[in-house]
Amino acid sequence: MEMKDLHEIAASARSAFYQISVSSADQRNTVLSALARLLTQNKDSIFAANQTDLDAAAAEDLAAPLLHRLTFGEEKLDQVVRGLHALADLPDPLNKTLSATEITEGLKLYRVSSPIGVIGVIFESRPDALIQISSLCIKSGNAVLLKGGREALHTNQVLCDLVSQALEDSGFSASTVQLLETREDVAQMLKEDTLIDLIIPRGSNSFVRYIMDNSRIPVLGHSDGICHVYVDSDADPETACRIVTDSKTQYVSVCNALETLLVHVDIAPVFLPELYRSLTEKNVEIRGDEQTAKIIPCVPATDKDWSSEYLDYILSIKIVSSLNDAIEHINRYGSHHTDCIVTNNSENASVFMNTVDSAGVYWNVSTRFADGFVYGLGAEVGIATGKLHARGPMGLEGLTTYKYKLIGSGQTMEEMKSGKRQYTHIPLQENCPL
Amino acid sequence: MEMKDLHEIAASARSAFYQISVSSADQRNTVLSALARLLTQNKDSIFAANQTDLDAAAAEDLAAPLLHRLTFGEEKLDQVVRGLHALADLPDPLNKTLSATEITEGLKLYRVSSPIGVIGVIFESRPDALIQISSLCIKSGNAVLLKGGREALHTNQVLCDLVSQALEDSGFSASTVQLLETREDVAQMLKEDTLIDLIIPRGSNSFVRYIMDNSRIPVLGHSDGICHVYVDSDADPETACRIVTDSKTQYVSVCNALETLLVHVDIAPVFLPELYRSLTEKNVEIRGDEQTAKIIPCVPATDKDWSSEYLDYILSIKIVSSLNDAIEHINRYGSHHTDCIVTNNSENASVFMNTVDSAGVYWNVSTRFADGFVYGLGAEVGIATGKLHARGPMGLEGLTTYKYKLIGSGQTMEEMKSGKRQYTHIPLQENCPL
Repeated sequence: MEMKDLHEIAASARSAFYQISVSSADQRNTVLSALARLLTQNKDSIFAANQTDLDAAAAEDLAAPLLHRLTFGEEKLDQVVRGLHALADLPDPLNKTLSATEITEGLKLYRVSSPIGVIGVIFESRPDALIQISSLCIKSGNAVLLKGGREALHTNQVLCDLVSQALEDSGFSASTVQLLETREDVAQMLKEDTLIDLIIPRGSNSFVRYIMDNSRIPVLGHSDGICHVYVDSDADPETACRIVTDSKTQYVSVCNALETLLVHVDIAPVFLPELYRSLTEKNVEIRGDEQTAKIIPCVPATDKDWSSEYLDYILSIKIVSSLNDAIEHINRYGSHHTDCIVTNNSENASVFMNTVDSAGVYWNVSTRFADGFVYGLGAEVGIATGKLHARGPMGLEGLTTYKYKLIGSGQTMEEMKSGKRQYTHIPLQENCPL
Repeated sequence: MEMKDLHEIAASARSAFYQISVSSADQRNTVLSALARLLTQNKDSIFAANQTDLDAAAAEDLAAPLLHRLTFGEEKLDQVVRGLHALADLPDPLNKTLSATEITEGLKLYRVSSPIGVIGVIFESRPDALIQISSLCIKSGNAVLLKGGREALHTNQVLCDLVSQALEDSGFSASTVQLLETREDVAQMLKEDTLIDLIIPRGSNSFVRYIMDNSRIPVLGHSDGICHVYVDSDADPETACRIVTDSKTQYVSVCNALETLLVHVDIAPVFLPELYRSLTEKNVEIRGDEQTAKIIPCVPATDKDWSSEYLDYILSIKIVSSLNDAIEHINRYGSHHTDCIVTNNSENASVFMNTVDSAGVYWNVSTRFADGFVYGLGAEVGIATGKLHARGPMGLEGLTTYKYKLIGSGQTMEEMKSGKRQYTHIPLQENCPL
């Protein structure tokens, strides 16, 4: 019974995809405007549902950073509504002619952007993520199955009902965006590889690995953010201190927050005491290796610290003897998310940025900038830590694929092989007519 | 012992990747020229090894189309050498600035193309594929582990030795391109998900599924080519006959050959007899549904025929009552490779091309055109039938990913949130300086 239900949900999403995939940009933008209006009109019921979730979370003694993420009040509403209007104003990501080539006389090849299909997204406790993900999928002509955090269930239900209403008011099927409610639904979803084209799991490494091990559906993993800052021997200590403090403490419970600091041995005696003052002001617990412990007070770090995503006021510190040691540490223990070098030496910056195997490689700037909105992508459906399809913050472009459209007048391969026709391969500056 | 060996191979490939990933385009092109020279100089030993493989294949009574694919003689050599020179002449796919944006004053974001890493490719009996795949990986700064068809082992060994020599002569590690020889190696390779970034399996659907089920490494599947031609009611019968005959018979053992023909009921009585004459001239066996059997002689088709990739002189034919029936059949039974509509009606062509969910959607042209060289990509490492990362013929661009390089001067998120700094999001026309 359970299995049939999820299969039906996925099948209805597939039908909804075929409908929205051939709709106009105007039709899809209408849904976003309608949703912005509905959210504002129904804010009282959203806030009430959120209060129910917050009360339950408080009763379960949820950590403060998690409570903060779960909260959906006036400020979040305002952000979300502004995000919807901004998204509606972005250009249509579909039916863009990405390239055009004359293959031989009278035969034209067009590479044209198109939606992916049905996407399954499993996200954490932030209910505003539901609106962000839904709206990105609608804008890009995809259908989506959503599974949010258990803690946010009441808020998510109200929000998803409003998305359904906005879709139906604009002539689309409510099945375009559907909310899954149980872990069993997720397990069943992973089996529907002929109906679902992509799974985006946002969560821990082990969770992403569980998804990959249990599905044939392609997975774009948004896994741990074990971000590093490396303070080079040529760094300006004041700049380094500012970047490390911001990367660690500006918002601790997000994936682009700093978790491990690597410090060149030559600058450590000068830099670490200064950093210590700044971090203790913010109540950051420091876990240092042996060499760090000789310079500043700290808890001894163990090997486990190098692969931990704390999402809390904790920082691990290791002293390294060279730029290469720092790069090797990052490529070995990091999660290929975002890593930063602080230095005044452009050659060291270049080696770091070209050899560190991460989606974001930064020079003299806080890791907190790794975000789709900050990058100018409008919003993000996740931050991909793999290398295929999309890497880093994944916005509208990551939710599209392309098709090759080839338009001819009866050309055959026999004519090409016999030399009756020649390849011309002329680049064309024109859009696909169909 | 076995496990350690493959782990060591993968680890050496990873080291080789870090070397080639930061090399210049000139260095990488030097390998391609050296390889072209070495292949010509050593053609006698290549041909001798190939004769050994051909003799063994003949003794095993391999089908004629497979023997044809296995053959590596003067003609293939000439093609391969010309391909290497053409590839060397193509622009560098790496270190291209794909976009540049000012995020806030003094903070610039660059999206820069970069290699993927270590790629495992499992390919079929064509030994020329070894040179094509190796050279595409070298040009794009990746390392590759290759597993060819058992039938081509002797030829592949000689070819891979020449690739090694070309790499070493040009200052690269021979570990950049390595040949695996057993199925056990492949099984072990699938476990090395921390050392290998991508697997490209070329083969049957069931083989691609086996790979996906047994690895956490992302897979770009090049699976069955169950290609369709749909002859619409508004088709010109002569054009349709030419396209169907070419798609089916020009080269039967390749993935872009036609396997199932769909014919609109209104045109079938006129078109099928004409097609029958053309196909019987080429000795094509026809497997038709009941309605087809009323018009032309044929073997009765079963449900299995609709999902069969014959790679032989066999064609299944089904009569459909509408364009939508044709589209539904293709989306249900096809392999999302390449499908063609023959029609003079541009509206029907548009519906077909936008709704058929395949990498290539063709209007009035033979399916045999689905090929990386034909598309102007230089060559191809495979034809992806999934929708993520690369779709259709996959050339150099499909072998690259990108990094975000963010260059600042101490910017913090605290400054952005407090309003001390503003987002500017100004598009820049400049290349990344690092």
